[in-house]
Formats: sequence, C-alpha cells, structure tokens
Amino acid sequence: MFFHVKELQYEAKVTRPDPVFAKMLQEVLGGQWGEISVAMQYMFQGFNVRGNKRYRDLLMDIGTEEIAHIEILATLIARLLDNTSLKEQEHAYHADPAVAAIMGGMNPQHAIVSGLGAMPADSVGNRWTADYIIASGNLLADFRANLTAESQGRLQVSRLYEITDDPLVKDTLSFLIARDTAHQNQWIAAIRELEEVEQDVVVPTTFPREWSKQEVAYDFYNTSRGQADADGPWANGIAPDGRGQFRYVQQPHPYGPKPVLPPAPEDVYDTPPIVEPEE
Amino acid sequence: MFFHVKELQYEAKVTRPDPVFAKMLQEVLGGQWGEISVAMQYMFQGFNVRGNKRYRDLLMDIGTEEIAHIEILATLIARLLDNTSLKEQEHAYHADPAVAAIMGGMNPQHAIVSGLGAMPADSVGNRWTADYIIASGNLLADFRANLTAESQGRLQVSRLYEITDDPLVKDTLSFLIARDTAHQNQWIAAIRELEEVEQDVVVPTTFPREWSKQEVAYDFYNTSRGQADADGPWANGIAPDGRGQFRYVQQPHPYGPKPVLPPAPEDVYDTPPIVEPEE
Amino acid sequence: MFFHVKELQYEAKVTRPDPVFAKMLQEVLGGQWGEISVAMQYMFQGFNVRGNKRYRDLLMDIGTEEIAHIEILATLIARLLDNTSLKEQEHAYHADPAVAAIMGGMNPQHAIVSGLGAMPADSVGNRWTADYIIASGNLLADFRANLTAESQGRLQVSRLYEITDDPLVKDTLSFLIARDTAHQNQWIAAIRELEEVEQDVVVPTTFPREWSKQEVAYDFYNTSRGQADADGPWANGIAPDGRGQFRYVQQPHPYGPKPVLPPAPEDVYDTPPIVEPEE
Amino acid sequence: MFFHVKELQYEAKVTRPDPVFAKMLQEVLGGQWGEISVAMQYMFQGFNVRGNKRYRDLLMDIGTEEIAHIEILATLIARLLDNTSLKEQEHAYHADPAVAAIMGGMNPQHAIVSGLGAMPADSVGNRWTADYIIASGNLLADFRANLTAESQGRLQVSRLYEITDDPLVKDTLSFLIARDTAHQNQWIAAIRELEEVEQDVVVPTTFPREWSKQEVAYDFYNTSRGQADADGPWANGIAPDGRGQFRYVQQPHPYGPKPVLPPAPEDVYDTPPIVEPEE
Amino acid sequence: MFFHVKELQYEAKVTRPDPVFAKMLQEVLGGQWGEISVAMQYMFQGFNVRGNKRYRDLLMDIGTEEIAHIEILATLIARLLDNTSLKEQEHAYHADPAVAAIMGGMNPQHAIVSGLGAMPADSVGNRWTADYIIASGNLLADFRANLTAESQGRLQVSRLYEITDDPLVKDTLSFLIARDTAHQNQWIAAIRELEEVEQDVVVPTTFPREWSKQEVAYDFYNTSRGQADADGPWANGIAPDGRGQFRYVQQPHPYGPKPVLPPAPEDVYDTPPIVEPEE
Amino acid sequence: MFFHVKELQYEAKVTRPDPVFAKMLQEVLGGQWGEISVAMQYMFQGFNVRGNKRYRDLLMDIGTEEIAHIEILATLIARLLDNTSLKEQEHAYHADPAVAAIMGGMNPQHAIVSGLGAMPADSVGNRWTADYIIASGNLLADFRANLTAESQGRLQVSRLYEITDDPLVKDTLSFLIARDTAHQNQWIAAIRELEEVEQDVVVPTTFPREWSKQEVAYDFYNTSRGQADADGPWANGIAPDGRGQFRYVQQPHPYGPKPVLPPAPEDVYDTPPIVEPEE
Repeated sequence: MFFHVKELQYEAKVTRPDPVFAKMLQEVLGGQWGEISVAMQYMFQGFNVRGNKRYRDLLMDIGTEEIAHIEILATLIARLLDNTSLKEQEHAYHADPAVAAIMGGMNPQHAIVSGLGAMPADSVGNRWTADYIIASGNLLADFRANLTAESQGRLQVSRLYEITDDPLVKDTLSFLIARDTAHQNQWIAAIRELEEVEQDVVVPTTFPREWSKQEVAYDFYNTSRGQADADGPWANGIAPDGRGQFRYVQQPHPYGPKPVLPPAPEDVYDTPPIVEPEE
Repeated sequence: MFFHVKELQYEAKVTRPDPVFAKMLQEVLGGQWGEISVAMQYMFQGFNVRGNKRYRDLLMDIGTEEIAHIEILATLIARLLDNTSLKEQEHAYHADPAVAAIMGGMNPQHAIVSGLGAMPADSVGNRWTADYIIASGNLLADFRANLTAESQGRLQVSRLYEITDDPLVKDTLSFLIARDTAHQNQWIAAIRELEEVEQDVVVPTTFPREWSKQEVAYDFYNTSRGQADADGPWANGIAPDGRGQFRYVQQPHPYGPKPVLPPAPEDVYDTPPIVEPEE
Repeated sequence: MFFHVKELQYEAKVTRPDPVFAKMLQEVLGGQWGEISVAMQYMFQGFNVRGNKRYRDLLMDIGTEEIAHIEILATLIARLLDNTSLKEQEHAYHADPAVAAIMGGMNPQHAIVSGLGAMPADSVGNRWTADYIIASGNLLADFRANLTAESQGRLQVSRLYEITDDPLVKDTLSFLIARDTAHQNQWIAAIRELEEVEQDVVVPTTFPREWSKQEVAYDFYNTSRGQADADGPWANGIAPDGRGQFRYVQQPHPYGPKPVLPPAPEDVYDTPPIVEPEE
Repeated sequence: MFFHVKELQYEAKVTRPDPVFAKMLQEVLGGQWGEISVAMQYMFQGFNVRGNKRYRDLLMDIGTEEIAHIEILATLIARLLDNTSLKEQEHAYHADPAVAAIMGGMNPQHAIVSGLGAMPADSVGNRWTADYIIASGNLLADFRANLTAESQGRLQVSRLYEITDDPLVKDTLSFLIARDTAHQNQWIAAIRELEEVEQDVVVPTTFPREWSKQEVAYDFYNTSRGQADADGPWANGIAPDGRGQFRYVQQPHPYGPKPVLPPAPEDVYDTPPIVEPEE
Repeated sequence: MFFHVKELQYEAKVTRPDPVFAKMLQEVLGGQWGEISVAMQYMFQGFNVRGNKRYRDLLMDIGTEEIAHIEILATLIARLLDNTSLKEQEHAYHADPAVAAIMGGMNPQHAIVSGLGAMPADSVGNRWTADYIIASGNLLADFRANLTAESQGRLQVSRLYEITDDPLVKDTLSFLIARDTAHQNQWIAAIRELEEVEQDVVVPTTFPREWSKQEVAYDFYNTSRGQADADGPWANGIAPDGRGQFRYVQQPHPYGPKPVLPPAPEDVYDTPPIVEPEE
Repeated sequence: MFFHVKELQYEAKVTRPDPVFAKMLQEVLGGQWGEISVAMQYMFQGFNVRGNKRYRDLLMDIGTEEIAHIEILATLIARLLDNTSLKEQEHAYHADPAVAAIMGGMNPQHAIVSGLGAMPADSVGNRWTADYIIASGNLLADFRANLTAESQGRLQVSRLYEITDDPLVKDTLSFLIARDTAHQNQWIAAIRELEEVEQDVVVPTTFPREWSKQEVAYDFYNTSRGQADADGPWANGIAPDGRGQFRYVQQPHPYGPKPVLPPAPEDVYDTPPIVEPEE
C-alpha cells in the first residue's frame, strides 16, 4: 500500500516560462527512459519477486522514489507552461517571427489537450507505453535492464542540462542527475552481488551449459567485411564467464542448408507452386 | 551494403508440426527481446557511431549476424506450421476437444494473415515496434542495453527450450542459446573496456560531477517501510564508481515544498479557482 | 447501410492558408477526443446494442452525424493547407526566419505523406487508434463515456477557437461547439433516464450489492497527507446512490498481510531464492 | 513524495492455480480501464491542478489508493500462476486435451516473458498505453472521465467475478467492486459540486455561449432512418443545462455546399486535375 | 454528410454460437486489411481529392459502402457470441476439456470488455490503428493501395470461409467475397485509366525523369547469392514503363565510400573518440 | 545468412547541416513507406515463400538491397545533424528568432535521445511498427503491396527532393528515386507474370468463383448522391477479370433486414432490455 506526502522530494522552480523546453523535458518524464518507465519497471519487478524479499525491498524502495520524480518533473513542466496562454501568443503569431517560432516549437497538446499541464508522453508526443519496460522474474537480467535505464536516463538529463540556461531548472536537473548517479552505482552493486552468488555472468545462470551448442558459444563472427574489431577483448582471450576462450572467425560460414518450404495446402490460398528453372 | 547467401546460419528443422509452439516462438522472433530487436538495435547503433570505427565494426558484425537469426526463426516457425491447414482441423473442431484446443491455442493470424508463415510479432500478436530499441550515441549506455537484450533473450529461449520436447527444435534453440552466451560475454568485455578507457562507470562519464547535486549522489532512500535491504552492497561501503560512500537514509524526507500552481489563463478554459478552506 | 450526400453539414471555409493551425486542428479530427473517436465509438455501441432499439437508434443518429463532422474538419484542414507548397517556402527557409518558423511549426507529414490533405492523426502526429474508444454493452457506462468525450471535445475546440483569428474558421468551430453543446445535453438526458429506469447510479446496477464488500463501499481513504478534501461532499453525508453514508478515514490502514510469493520452479529460470537476513 | 508499506491494502489469496483466469484478470490490471489507468489518470490530473488544492488533494488521495490496487492485482495474478510451470504441462500437452486447453488458454508471455509474474498489459496482451488516460486541466471534464473509468472498471470486475468460482479470488474482487462503488459515488458527488459552483453542465462552462452557433445547439438530427428515439428526453423538453429547448429534426439537411479543393501545386506531385464531365 | 438506414446491406445470420470463430472474424473487421481500414482509407482519400471530383465520387461511393460492411460484420460477430455467457461455461471449465478449450480459444475481451459485442480490433486483439491506411493525394499511388487492400481482404475472407462450416456464415462471407471481387476489378479499371491518362506507370508520373539517376533506374541487383530469379521478366527486356531496358547485375558493387562520421560535440555526451588501430 | 561490406551502396554527402531537413528525411527511413518497411516486408515475404524459390530469390535480392538503403539514409541524417549541438543553438535561442525557429523545427529526440543520430521513426517521431507491413503467403496480393510501397515511397522522396536545395542531398535522393523506378517496374513485371500464370487478376485466384455471391460481383453501388463517377471504366463494360460485366446501380438498396440482437445474459451485466415504443 502507498501513501503520499504533499511536499516534493526536491524543488521544481523555474525562472521564466519556456514552452519549448517544457516540450523537451517531456522526454525524461514520459519517454522511453523517463521517470514513468523506471517507476513502473521497478514496481512490477518488485511485485513479482519470488522468494527474495531483500531484493523486493530494494526494488520497492527505488521504485517508490521514482514516483516522486514523476511528480517533480510534472510540476516543473507545468511551471514552464505558466503564462504561455496561446491567446496572447496568437495575437501576434502571423506577424512576429519570434512568437511564431515559439508556437511552432511548443507541443500543441500542452495547449489543446492538457491545459498547460504535463503529459504522460515523450518530447515528440508519443504517449508512454509499457513496451518500454520489463519484469522478467530473473533479477540479474532485470537489474541489467535497470542499470541500462539509469544510464540512458542520466544521459538524457545531462543533454537537457546543457540545453537550458535557466539556473533554477538546472538546479532541479542536477538533483535528478545525482539520483541517477546513486541508482547506477546501486544497480551495479546489486548486479555484482548476484553474479557472485550465482557464480556466473551469463543469464540465466541456471540453464545447463551442456544443453547449449558449446562449440559456438565463444565465437566471434566477422560477418562484416573489414577487421577493425579483430583485436578487441570480445574476440580474444578468456571470456568474462571464465568458461571459454573467444575465437575470432574471420570468414564465418553457414552451418545449415538452404531452407525450402513445401507448398501450402489449397485451403490457405497461398500462391500455388509454379514450375521453375533449376537454381 | 549487405549481401545474402541462401544457406541458413544453422539448421531449422522440426520433427512434427506444432502450431501452439509456433505461436510461442514468435516471442523470440518479433517480441520485445527478439531477434528483430537486436538486429535493428545493433545496426542503428552501428550506423550512428561517431568517430570510433572499431566499435562500429563490432556493432555491424553482431548486428548482421542477428539478421541471420531472424531468418532461422522465421523458417522454424513456418515449418512448425506445415500441414496445419485450418480446413482439416476445422472439420472436427466442434466435436473434438483435442482439435479445439489446438485451434484455441494457435495464433489465428498464422492461418488468416500470414498463410502459415512467420510474422514480425510477439507470442500474443503484438506487432514489432521500434519502441523496443535504443541507439543513443553513447556506447557505454548502449552496450548495457545490448547486454540486457542478450540476457533477456537467452532467458526467453531457455524457457522455450523447456517447453518443447521436439529434439530438432531443441537443437536449433541450443545454437541460439550458445550465440547468446557468446554475445553476453562479448558485450561484457566491451563494457569493461569502455569503463576502463573512460575511467568511470557512471554514464555519461564526461558530465562534470560538480554540476550534479553531489550531496545526494550516494544516498539510498528507504521509501518503503521495512529494512530488508539495509545491509546490501547498494547501501553500504564505497560505491562502484569509487567516488563516494553509500549512505542508507532510514527516514527520507522531502527537500522541496508543496507544489502550488497558479490558475490557468481564461482562454485555456481550465476549471477556474474556487475559494477553498485552508488545508 | 449508409448513404452520403455531397454537401457538407456546415461550411468549412478559410480566410487564408495557415499550416500551423492545420496541424493543431488535427487534434479534434484524429486525436483522442476527436471526431473519429466519437463516430467510431457511437457506431460500435450502436451495432452492439442488445434488446434496446430505442438506444440503438439514438446511437446511430448521433454516430452518423459525427462522420459528417470528420468530413467538415478534413475539408477545413485541406483548405488551411492550400497554397502552402513546400517548394515556395523552401526557397527562403534558410534565409527567412518567418518562413523557417512556419516550416518548423507545420506538420511535415502534411507535405510529405498526405500531399496537403488531412490525416487520421492528432496534432503531434500520433495516428488514430481504437485504444481511444469503448463499447461495453452497458449503456449507462457507455453514455458516461460519451458525455466525457463530448466534454473533452468541446473543451479542445474552445481552446482552438481562441487560438485562431480567422473569422471563417471561427465560424465553423462555433458550429461544432454548438453541436457539442447539444450532444452533452443529450447524453446527460439519456444518462438521467437510464439512472431512473435502473433505479441506481452505480454501474452495473444489476450486480448484487451483497456480493461486494459493503463495509468499505462508502469509505474515503486519506492516503495523501493533508486533509484539504476532508469536508467535500465525497466524504460526508449520504452517497449519491442513496444506499450508504460516506466515511472519511483519516488514517487508512492495510487490511492484508505482506505478500510473499514462493520461488518459481526451476524450469522458469527465475532467480533462485537466496538466503536472506530476517526483515 | 510517496511512501510504501509492505502490507497489501486487502488480501490477495487464491484457492488453486488458474493460469487461464490469470490471463483474464490482466484486463483490470493493465487494460484500458484497469488499475494502472486510474492510478496514472488521477495522479496526472492531481499534478496538473491549477489553483484548487482541495481537488488536488482529492485526486492524490484516490490516485494513491489506486497504486495499491495495482499491487493487489499483481499479487493475485502471480499467485494464480504459482505451480503452473510450463515444463510439467508440456510433458503432456500433445497427449492430454485438458492440458493442451490450459496451454492454449493461458497467456504465453506469463511463461516466457514475465516468469510467472503479472504484466502491465491487458487480457489479450496489449501493453498498457497512456492513450487510455486524460488530464485536461478542466476538472469537470476530467471528473466525468473518472466516473466513466470507475463505471467501466466496476463492470469488468463484475464480469470477472461471475467467471471465477474460486471463493478467495471472489473475496478480493468483492473488495475492488466495493471500492469502485465508493469511487463512482465520490466522483458523482464531486461532479455535482462543480456543476453547482460553475452553474452549468456544459463543459467548458466558461466559454461564452454567444460565440457558439446557438441556433443548432439544441437540435437532435435524425440522420438514421426510423424514429425509435424521437420520444426520448434527448429530443424533447428543456435541455439539462436549462438554457434551451430540444428540437427533433426529422429530416436534417446540410448547411454547407459541396466541398471543392483546388489542385495541388506541381511540386507536391498529387494527381494532376483531369478534364471531367459535369456532375 | 451521411445518412443511415436501419437495414443491413446483406444478411448477417448464424446457425449457432461460435465464440472461437467470432474471435477469428475480428480480423476482417478490425485488422490491418479489415473493413474499418478500407472505409477509413477511401473516405480520407475522398475528402482530400484535389481537383478531380469524378475520383472523389468514386472514392466516396465505395467508402460509404464499406461502412455498411463494418455493420454487417459487427452484427455477425455479436450473433456468434449470443448465448455464450461465460457463467455457464465457467461452471464446467475446470472439469470439462471441451469447455476449457472454448474458453481458451475465445477472445476474453468479448466477455469482459465488449459484453458480447464486436470490437474495433483484429483476431489477436490489437486495436485498429490508422497506421494501416494511406491517403497521399496521389491517386495512382492510392488506388494501388486500394487494390492491395481488396486483394489482402478477399484472401483473408476466403481463408475464413474455409474455416467455418456454418452455412449461414458462409453465405454472408460469400457476399463480402463477391464485393471484394467487384472492388478489385474496379480499382484495376481505375488504375488503368490513370496510367493511360498520365502516360506512365511509375508514380509520381510527373517527377522529371532527368532529375533521377537514370543509369541505375533499370538495374536488378543480385544481392542474394544464387540466380534463381535471373531469367524473370523483372530482369530482362523492356521495362513496363517502356522507357528503359532491364539489366541483371550479377555482382553488384557499392557506389559509395565507407561512411565516417565525425565525433559529436562534447555537450551531447556521446562516447568520445578513442584512439584506434588502422582497419 | 547475411554479410555486410563497409562501403555504402551510394554516396550520402551533405553540403551543410540542416536539422530541420534531417527531421523530414526520417519519413522515408522509418515512416510507413520508408526503407525499414520495404526491407522488412520483402524479407518476411521471402522467408515465408512456399514452393517457389524463384520468387523467394527475387524477394531476397530486393529486400537485401533495401537494408543498404536504410544505411544510406541513416548516414545522410547523421550528417545533416553534424555540428548542430544544442548548446551552441541554445545560447541564442531566447534572443534570436532564426535559432529559435531551428530549435522548434528540429526533432528534439535527435538531440536528447539519439545523440545526433538517425532514429527508426518517421518525420513526426512515431517509432517504426510492423503494422506497416504484410507477408500473406499469396504472392500476387503481396507484390501488389510491394508496388504500392514503391509508389508511395517514390512519391515521398520526390516531395523531399523539392524541399531541399542542397545539391549533394538531391544527388543521393536522385539515386533512391531511380531505384524506386526500377522496383516499381520490377513489381509490375512480376505481377503481370503471376496474373498470366494464374490466369486471373482477382486475388486469391484459386477461390472457386461459384462459392461467392456472383450476382453482386460486378455491381457498382452509387451510395453517394451524385453520379460524377457513373461513366467510369469501373462501372461500365467488361471487368478486367474478363468474367463479368460491370453494372452501375444508381439506387442501391439493402438486401438484409434490420439487425436485432437478443438481450445479453444477466451475468454479463449489459443494460437490461427496457420496454420500448414501437419504431
């Protein structure tokens, strides 16, 4: 069960309205790597944890914090939209290129749909979708997804930090960047623990290795002409799982034959087979 | 530029038709973590590499291999659909529960839409979408996404391996699992190299640390009652980036005030402010 | 069966081209609350009416009118795009900020995809999706959805009315606003009739009340710190259904225990349970 | 800011595994009218409230409760999936129609993707999308959306209540149904208050009536042959807003002319105009 | 403007309920090539016709007919769902494999969401989306899309005709198949007329040929090893546009150099360039 | 299996950065008719060919070439984004309308998400989806889809050719236009061959004509008032399939009765039937 306190986890103030930046900020609220994604991802992973309440707690702690980040960004976006009523802008937008540029650059849905409020959408208006998230039941796989999310998220906030010149907005972003620093470190720590406990780095660690085609499990196939990558650590030496030696295969070849499918039965109405020349 | 050879990278044979398993296999062809996702993700990352042709080559090599995996799975699915013409099944499906179960369990689009062929969709019929992938220009962030994809992908193929009892299908899956083993190892090796070169583990490594709110950059907030996670490596000791000490905050408090937004201008037609009692 | 007459239900004239406003107008044609949504929603509700041909007729009447509104808006958008050939604009767009602003502010798909025609999409380019609509078979539930749609729709057209200063466009919008006035009133009248006939306001009215957990059916839980809403009519007095008394619960508590899930079976390859400290 | 307590708001127990019902229950977790929708909708409405903190509090209270409902349903679904390892089922699924039916009837993603956990998706596997929700800034419009959501939601849970025969599952559903009873009543109470304060029922109440085409604002157009709906309260008497008299127009006619669009400029490459016969 | 008559364009009767077939039929109502797609596609093409009212009339005639097909299929699906109340089925579904198979095979949303009514969705539950349609302003391009839609649509209805053994359902399908016959013929006739009037078959016919790289405009590149297609009419002889001679290029080579992108500026936080070995 | 060579199939050079045109170019890379669509469509058709290896080869040849076109466009877009770091632009964007217009007109995801790289998305930011493509198993139906795709694609590239004034960009587009010329001609040639071999033009050609309602198979229904289309080749003379004579039906009438659905069973909780007046 959840509870809300009215105070924001951190300040969300702005120096002046900026509808164009409000549009851009949507990316880290409702985009692929935004706060909705991490909140929902961590909570679903947490709800689904089977038999490891320590990790469930970890997920619920960080997941619950992320809902607070949704709240911060929604507030920040609403304030960037204060006093940006379309009416005033419109009076001039056919005449004044500067106003027209703002009109063209803002998200029209901020005016028409949300009434100067934040939306669960990204910077080009795609609504948030659960296609963005994962909760697989395998925590090592999922913590890697979480580290990815915090990496992509911090990257995007850093880019936004460079774009704005509003010191108050920068201040809020600097808080979010710091929290992403913490979370990247924390997921790395959790990943290392799991890799150590499970004594492997290849997910799922419990799948019997002998059931997989071991003879190709450490090959690197040079399917792309040129060998700029031939000397990399991905193609030479002992693999990170310590169970095999990488092999650089300069000219990989197919192991299988040409695929030939029989004609479809008549009632499927595929194209009937036609007599063909030999290949 | 790309070239195709007719032979499959590996065998894609089946012992007998199995339309229910054909439906399930779609997950690792056209689902969130399927072969289309990795092929497209690696290629877009490769096309967008700026100034690091070694990594471009790495991405194009693995990306091009993944297109071959699409081909293998598409062939395997088509063969699981051989001789499953609906007509024959239909003759009995009102009478015979076994046939009815197959009818109910197969993907109707395999019969109606694709004519007994594979589809670019997942195991419940969601069409593949680029919402699943990322190419951010930051290779450390992206290689973490790639490791995640190979981890989730190998997990799913392992689950499918357990579901089928067809030895030929298992053989093909064992090849794909082995290749996912290779690729997990390879992305780990590449990640380690980048972390070493960039001398940091927090993406983006080039964002000046002093621009972020350092005083909260190593906190763990216990926002969820109970402390089952208090002793974890994510809350104690030196953080993986070596730049800070984790701090477990048992009772986190808000740093910000209650957010209050001013009323919207009249021409936006939001609800006008109503005189309210004090909170 | 349907028939078309060539005349528009109402004028769709413009004073001058305005590609930026054409982009915005898409919202009420192909957006979440646009004319495609209401046309499709009312028709599907109408097709699915079981045993109440009076309501079927009501739905088909309004639904058929809404297709005419699609036609009006599509025409209006096409005319706002008259004479906005990209070629002419392009000749200047690197040099002239005013032209560049229009280029940036128009929907590029109006030029590239639809050839200066309207699209079944919203103001940021999201294509229309049936995710927006509902036809549940329960008319009281659905008429509430219809009232919502007409409320949101009229709100959006009102906002657009303020943005444009073209008197001819305003005239067309004033027609659509008036029709939304009519439809809001009409759905309210229909809702009142159904509530009276079914002698309840809680959908579905036929679900036996004793099957639901009556002791919590009139509680208001103060899950959010602060009691600004404690004196509202939603927390005090007899509930609108006349069957219970609202109760404001200042400190709501969980009725259930901590959830604990057993470990997954091995063949699912979830993370195995790890020995944990007591919480 | 948000906090989590480990206990569930209500019990989420099951008598026995039931993967087919687990699939169905997803509808009210991650479907169009499921708990994710109401939680996100109320929170975004709450974050965006301008100048009415009483309603903000109302929205945050109910919104925060809905996150707890997500948690209840996720737990319930995970438990319906306990002991449904595919491996055991698979051993028999070619031979045993009963097992095959369960295989066919369950959501394959519960096995392959989520590892026997709940997903943010509906009963046919569509991932949750923010296309389902609205936060417009106009509270009367939005509270109508909220009443709709609680009506559709309670309807769906009632249908599910009939489908299952597990008494423990029924008990949990009876709690959710009761809460939907409360919330329907509460939104009705809030709507009545707003209609009274704003002294109108037509959203937005502040749009000047004289700006709309008043002469058609109370017409009912009989666009569908047959007059089964001619005697309804939507076509006769004073309209609910008290500002007009409904008029039933038996043979509605177009007010506008045939639309004719000029040819597109050459550089758009539309089809050039062709000499045509007169119509 | 549109009008509705109550009668169906054709019968929509069923011999007995069949919820599994109801699920399948959704494909041709709300799927990629279903009736919603053609109705919406033809109407948007019609609304957007510039300067060719003869083709506008053609599009509106067929488009309006297609709305009637939506109505027929919606009615047919609702009737296939008559008397399939889940309650009755449920009483036995744990015990009776035949009932369980039907439960597993039907679309759960027909029971939970639409209340035994048709949905604007396909046979696996994907909601209809305007991603399926096109209206480009170029009629030759669009009529080809229309011919495609009628071809795919008739193919799917033919497959469904084979699946069902209900003579009344077959009768309705035989009507729809006949109309698709008519429409395929009609779009072919219209395409031929346009090709003749525009004196070319390559869309857009008005783009100056000399602006395109004519030396590669008739090449066939054998990018896929093996020459089974070398003798086809697509690689030999005069091309259909009569303006060039096909050329089969057995070993196509790249015309361009290796792409090299410069490093990104620092403030974008891409991976900095790393010193690399020569390729 | 696939192989990559580093060289581009054609040049992808630019004279100067142009982030607004980079946004527009996304349409033909990741939009409905872009290069991802044709690459994926042809490959899936190719993988699924049953019993006609000549057509499989044809599909794989053209499909593999299209992946090279993805590469060309991705490179071109990245170069149009060179030196468009947001930082520099931002320094002036509040002050300088020209910079503001570029900011407003570029795709913010090019800066925030992809780090100045191309995205698998269209010109308004919709991510690519497999909703755009088809592989039906019936080659005549699919080749018509392919001809449509090449027609729409060439149309869009032609429009983009007019928008840009960069001679190097024009040069690359002229190559793509020429290849679309080739592919349109090639699909026409293949369609003609199939129509000849199958001796019919109506897909699927193998569906027995007598099973369809032949008496309506050549009717043209004038459902839209006005007869501008009455003299067209779609309504007069022998149909293209040579099997029937078109008939123009000036006043089409319904063949079916009014649809009446019985009430739903109680446990579905639809609205119960209400006593109604006769229609």
